[in-house]
Amino acid sequence: MTSAAFDVLGIGNAIVDVLTKADDAFLSQHGLVKGSMMLIDEARADTLYAAMGPGVEISGGSCGNTMAGVASFGGKGAYIGKVRDDQLGAVFGHDLKATGVSFETASATSGPATARCLILVTPDAQRTMNTYLGACTGLGPADIDVARVGSAQVTYVEGYLWDAPAAKQAVLKAFDAAHAAGRKVSITLSDSFCVHRYREEFRDLIRNKVDILFGNEAEIKALYEVETFEEALEAARKEAKIAALTRSEKGSVVIKGSETYEVPAAPVAKVVDTTGAGDLYASGFLFGFTHGKPLAECARLGGIAAAEVISHVGARPEKALSGLV
Amino acid sequence: MTSAAFDVLGIGNAIVDVLTKADDAFLSQHGLVKGSMMLIDEARADTLYAAMGPGVEISGGSCGNTMAGVASFGGKGAYIGKVRDDQLGAVFGHDLKATGVSFETASATSGPATARCLILVTPDAQRTMNTYLGACTGLGPADIDVARVGSAQVTYVEGYLWDAPAAKQAVLKAFDAAHAAGRKVSITLSDSFCVHRYREEFRDLIRNKVDILFGNEAEIKALYEVETFEEALEAARKEAKIAALTRSEKGSVVIKGSETYEVPAAPVAKVVDTTGAGDLYASGFLFGFTHGKPLAECARLGGIAAAEVISHVGARPEKALSGLV
Repeated sequence: MTSAAFDVLGIGNAIVDVLTKADDAFLSQHGLVKGSMMLIDEARADTLYAAMGPGVEISGGSCGNTMAGVASFGGKGAYIGKVRDDQLGAVFGHDLKATGVSFETASATSGPATARCLILVTPDAQRTMNTYLGACTGLGPADIDVARVGSAQVTYVEGYLWDAPAAKQAVLKAFDAAHAAGRKVSITLSDSFCVHRYREEFRDLIRNKVDILFGNEAEIKALYEVETFEEALEAARKEAKIAALTRSEKGSVVIKGSETYEVPAAPVAKVVDTTGAGDLYASGFLFGFTHGKPLAECARLGGIAAAEVISHVGARPEKALSGLV
Repeated sequence: MTSAAFDVLGIGNAIVDVLTKADDAFLSQHGLVKGSMMLIDEARADTLYAAMGPGVEISGGSCGNTMAGVASFGGKGAYIGKVRDDQLGAVFGHDLKATGVSFETASATSGPATARCLILVTPDAQRTMNTYLGACTGLGPADIDVARVGSAQVTYVEGYLWDAPAAKQAVLKAFDAAHAAGRKVSITLSDSFCVHRYREEFRDLIRNKVDILFGNEAEIKALYEVETFEEALEAARKEAKIAALTRSEKGSVVIKGSETYEVPAAPVAKVVDTTGAGDLYASGFLFGFTHGKPLAECARLGGIAAAEVISHVGARPEKALSGLV
């Protein structure tokens, strides 16, 4: 295995978030389920946007947030994701590159606009997400530069990609390229609804290709269709090479064969907004992993990154994570 | 005078703000003067944007902020300003209309993109603003619907408009239409650098057309080229019909002929970001004025709005101002 140009290469849905405040009545009026991520089409996105309050635009996307975290730790990151050649696409690209992440995926020059996620923040601080995938649906195998993938220690993808039809083929191409170069591959389950949509494919992938699995308690229970975290943990132990499972304020548990590491959550003065906690946990874990740290230390770094991001509004770190280790 | 469809009609540069953090070294490296507003061309905007950190996009523009404030008090507002038919233009329009302000100015279908202001926030909480006027330069007399202007109790404009060549003609057309309908007109001096650029024109306008003048201490001193606030106040008394002059934590002073009203600032638990203070003061004052309140009460409402906006990041109110009176 040659030395790696990148620590982590991430593949994800390239999305600009549009945040606004809303009350419970607005959610019911528009048939939205609080706390969930729902996929919406362009017409629905337009209707919802017209109805919602003034917004704030900020680059997001689960994997984009993770890569911003890797860079914030001082790691070398690259990102593959599809935007349109429009203003929000330029915003997404600028913001990611400004964190230090390499991003060279060609923008779509036709077809749907850059993806956006309309996020309704209710007074209880919960977020209801409505994602219009737009240009993300154009991500395909042609966007996977196998040399670039082969030059990254770990290729990390988000389960959300399964919602974009051609993206799955892109992921499989990338996983094969990574393994051909002697590298590792990793996936996050993203969301329990996403797990329900693609359970069998995810389980197959975890058994046969994935080296590091990320998921939270709800997701891993949904994956194995069990009632308790302990059952899910033992199911994951049988099928995953390494699994890093997060449990909010209970910290995380990392398993690798018969090894088990329970790592407490990092202290947080005040939880302001939990969005991005899982994304940033993955960034800390992968930064540690690609810097030769033992698994328990990887989990600790994940916890530090998650604690930083939930202490403010927004899903990308505000403080340099390199200063918090 | 017939009853008014609108309390306040605002005319301003329609701008989307792009906020990022920067350190003093970044400012010197790019030749920026801390705390100032500088006009930049497209090439410079592109260079600066490429160099700066990840951003957050939020609708702004001084007069746009004021109109959002008027609406937040429960006032009926209309806005005239020029965006391009691009994504940031759609964002600006959505955000303003979502506050309840009527906005029907036709978007430009060619020419420069929607205006943006690259705002660098330094660790001392100061803001250095770099404005690319873009589509705003297309605002002209054709955008002034005289019937609409005539249906508003007060037409309010920002001094910044003088930076867009054809906008001045639009303002003069609007002022004449307002007066022809028996309405009042109002202007804010916007910025002391702006006053330096257009001093004589502003003074001429204040003497001959303006009914209500807004300015802060630095601006009114710059306008009359005097050293003290007291001298500026007496100069304004001779030339302006009504002047509402703000003095940060010292509150505001309103003069009308021989009448003088000194109104203390509203209490603020913690000043987080002073941007928008003047814009929101104008909103409260004009809301009061168009609801038949005495001048001292107009100033008190201005102070309440300013206090709300400086208690958080961002230049538009987060709480309904109608709930704070």
